[in-house]
Amino acid sequence: MDIVIIGCGAAGGTAAQFARKNNRKALITLYEKGPYSQYSRCGLPYTLSGEVDPDKLIEFSHEWFQKARIDLHLTTPVTKIDFDKQYIYTTNGEKKYDSLIIATGVHSHAPFPIDTKKHSFLRTLDDAHHIQRMATRGTHIAIIGAGPTGLEAAEALIKRGVTVTLIEYYSSLLPTMLDSDMAPIIHDTLMKRELLSLTLNHEVTSIDGDMDIHIKNRKTGDKRTISADFALVASGNTPVLDLVPESMTDRGIIIDERCETSKKNVYAIGDCSQYRDITGAPCLVGLGSIAVRQGKVAGINASGGKAVLPPLLNTRVTKVFDLEIAAVGPLSTGLENPLVSTFRGSSRPLYLPGEEIRVKVMATRKGKLCAAQIIGPGAAQRINAFATAISCNMTLQQFSGIETAYAPVVSPVFLPSTLACEIALRKQ
Amino acid sequence: MDIVIIGCGAAGGTAAQFARKNNRKALITLYEKGPYSQYSRCGLPYTLSGEVDPDKLIEFSHEWFQKARIDLHLTTPVTKIDFDKQYIYTTNGEKKYDSLIIATGVHSHAPFPIDTKKHSFLRTLDDAHHIQRMATRGTHIAIIGAGPTGLEAAEALIKRGVTVTLIEYYSSLLPTMLDSDMAPIIHDTLMKRELLSLTLNHEVTSIDGDMDIHIKNRKTGDKRTISADFALVASGNTPVLDLVPESMTDRGIIIDERCETSKKNVYAIGDCSQYRDITGAPCLVGLGSIAVRQGKVAGINASGGKAVLPPLLNTRVTKVFDLEIAAVGPLSTGLENPLVSTFRGSSRPLYLPGEEIRVKVMATRKGKLCAAQIIGPGAAQRINAFATAISCNMTLQQFSGIETAYAPVVSPVFLPSTLACEIALRKQ
Repeated sequence: MDIVIIGCGAAGGTAAQFARKNNRKALITLYEKGPYSQYSRCGLPYTLSGEVDPDKLIEFSHEWFQKARIDLHLTTPVTKIDFDKQYIYTTNGEKKYDSLIIATGVHSHAPFPIDTKKHSFLRTLDDAHHIQRMATRGTHIAIIGAGPTGLEAAEALIKRGVTVTLIEYYSSLLPTMLDSDMAPIIHDTLMKRELLSLTLNHEVTSIDGDMDIHIKNRKTGDKRTISADFALVASGNTPVLDLVPESMTDRGIIIDERCETSKKNVYAIGDCSQYRDITGAPCLVGLGSIAVRQGKVAGINASGGKAVLPPLLNTRVTKVFDLEIAAVGPLSTGLENPLVSTFRGSSRPLYLPGEEIRVKVMATRKGKLCAAQIIGPGAAQRINAFATAISCNMTLQQFSGIETAYAPVVSPVFLPSTLACEIALRKQ
Repeated sequence: MDIVIIGCGAAGGTAAQFARKNNRKALITLYEKGPYSQYSRCGLPYTLSGEVDPDKLIEFSHEWFQKARIDLHLTTPVTKIDFDKQYIYTTNGEKKYDSLIIATGVHSHAPFPIDTKKHSFLRTLDDAHHIQRMATRGTHIAIIGAGPTGLEAAEALIKRGVTVTLIEYYSSLLPTMLDSDMAPIIHDTLMKRELLSLTLNHEVTSIDGDMDIHIKNRKTGDKRTISADFALVASGNTPVLDLVPESMTDRGIIIDERCETSKKNVYAIGDCSQYRDITGAPCLVGLGSIAVRQGKVAGINASGGKAVLPPLLNTRVTKVFDLEIAAVGPLSTGLENPLVSTFRGSSRPLYLPGEEIRVKVMATRKGKLCAAQIIGPGAAQRINAFATAISCNMTLQQFSGIETAYAPVVSPVFLPSTLACEIALRKQ
């Protein structure tokens, strides 16, 4: 059995590993257009502070894949797939497949043509090395895009003594992660930081040779110019769909619960794929956590096993300075007439000093939990409890009844999450 | 409608509050044998360091109850219940009831007769005040019992400059919370502390007038004497069953899912009650978190509403020095032939410095999750995700498939909890 995988990111690399685990005999061939084997893309922002050596992000080396008898070809882009003949073509030759897994990832896009001397994305180890070289103490770097990558990079660069200007197209921070009513506290935290300035609701209209970044207020139309030494562009990504016919795609390559595309024995996983979320809506994948889970499912199915991918929860977290921010499920704007409640509580009972925890909960009008957003200590683990509840179709009533762990130094007797659900219940 | 509640602890006080919320017209009378209105018993150990004023633990004052039109009688023990006539009797008089809620709590017990000048429990605000007075810098206090209360008190006393000797009957720490294979790391942490010594697997045989505590090694029979200035006894509690006939009790007052006893319109809640756990086994209640949830259910049912208590999960947490320790479900010894796995991982991906997280997972042979124990940062919130999963009857397979939140500075792509479940799955 010949399994071919295109792309050795988190999705493709994981698929190869699980195909091998599941099938000791299959021939597994993995093509990667870049020069590095599987590494943690999500770790890239942390290299910018100098705390993490970019090369440490490589999680599975070329040797590791060799030992697992996975034939990894680096710097080998796949240029064409013949789905009828079941062949893929590279710059070096061709290869027949029985099962094919497409994990081609995304293109980053910029509001202006990228000149690598002056601008960079933060998608690859080479990008990280490059920005590290440019980001010397006292430099001024403009970051375009205030999503998780932009904010994580901003924090890392400030640690290094770089002055940062964040420019965001939308009117609130982390616009794909938080509803606009949850974002202001992050804004307040960032505003207190030295070396950081923030410009929301502005479009970058152009950038000129001297690194003058021309921006326009999306509300008033007012124009301004920001002069920086370098620009880090983190304003969004688009699935790489070059190798597949339009019939297989929507915004990404459409897959079913086996991660299989409309072509038999052809799977797609990771950021290039599109799957349904818990509301049934088609959803692009932009998270490493989903990429590895899809890699596992596709690797098992492609090698003759049976695995199923549950609907996407989009459980996500980031940490910006001291704020841990997590979310699960769609934004409120992605839900039809949801029941919504918010709650601000403390991490501990009132008689002990605690940290603020903000929770937003969303449910259907019938009370079925469908989304949550949390800011504060333990947000990731708190959101994981919501993810567990949503994945078993729990109601507000059931979730707020769960016996949670209580000890005054650790947690109050009723969690902020529980109280947010009770408020929603009362509204029902 | 006349609702009478006996005991103004977390259970009784909460019952009164929910009875009032649910029924604006009911007459609610609350009898408390002690001089204080509802306070946090779980907060008592933290008063010993001097960080928390014991009086700050009062969560609902006498005035608060008055405003809620709840007739609270302090220092008024109920001496008898006539279940046929539906009357209770106190030292001051009698009172008819339509619904009765019994929340009489527990007696603490000691391996020797308590002399309050030299020994104390840590069950009441008065106990806390008393120990605070005795625990001056340089004093040597013996703590008998290394459960959560004993360990929390030890930490608080050491902060105050008190020398502490912990004496535990069983051979491992936190014996009702952790399996013996999970406890050694706590032992190691405690052993590193100055001012603290630890004696496991020893029975206190007697104590004499000079505060010589005579102990016997339960394995070897060897006898020793520990000389201390004061003894804090935290070696266990027994439900107060004095007011009810034996027919209503087993080890505690037996209740159903409405918190109702075998007598109609008579409810029992909190530490004096006995309910079934998730395995169906009868289980005493020893947690404030359960007491308030039972209070809510009984308060609603006693006042004409409808509420149901799910089986007890016994979700519990404590923090000892820097170790957060949490558990849910029975110990492995309380399960019949469970599937068990343990895992030691990090709080973050390998390329970032992280803290150790130890997880133990237990499931039925068919793979249904039934218990977990976690030591490490975020243990409480991590165990809450297990509690959520167990309360929806999730399998190891389902739980390990849940899309958890991932960002390198916060959490690895596969949680230690997830990996522990995968190991158990492979054993299945």
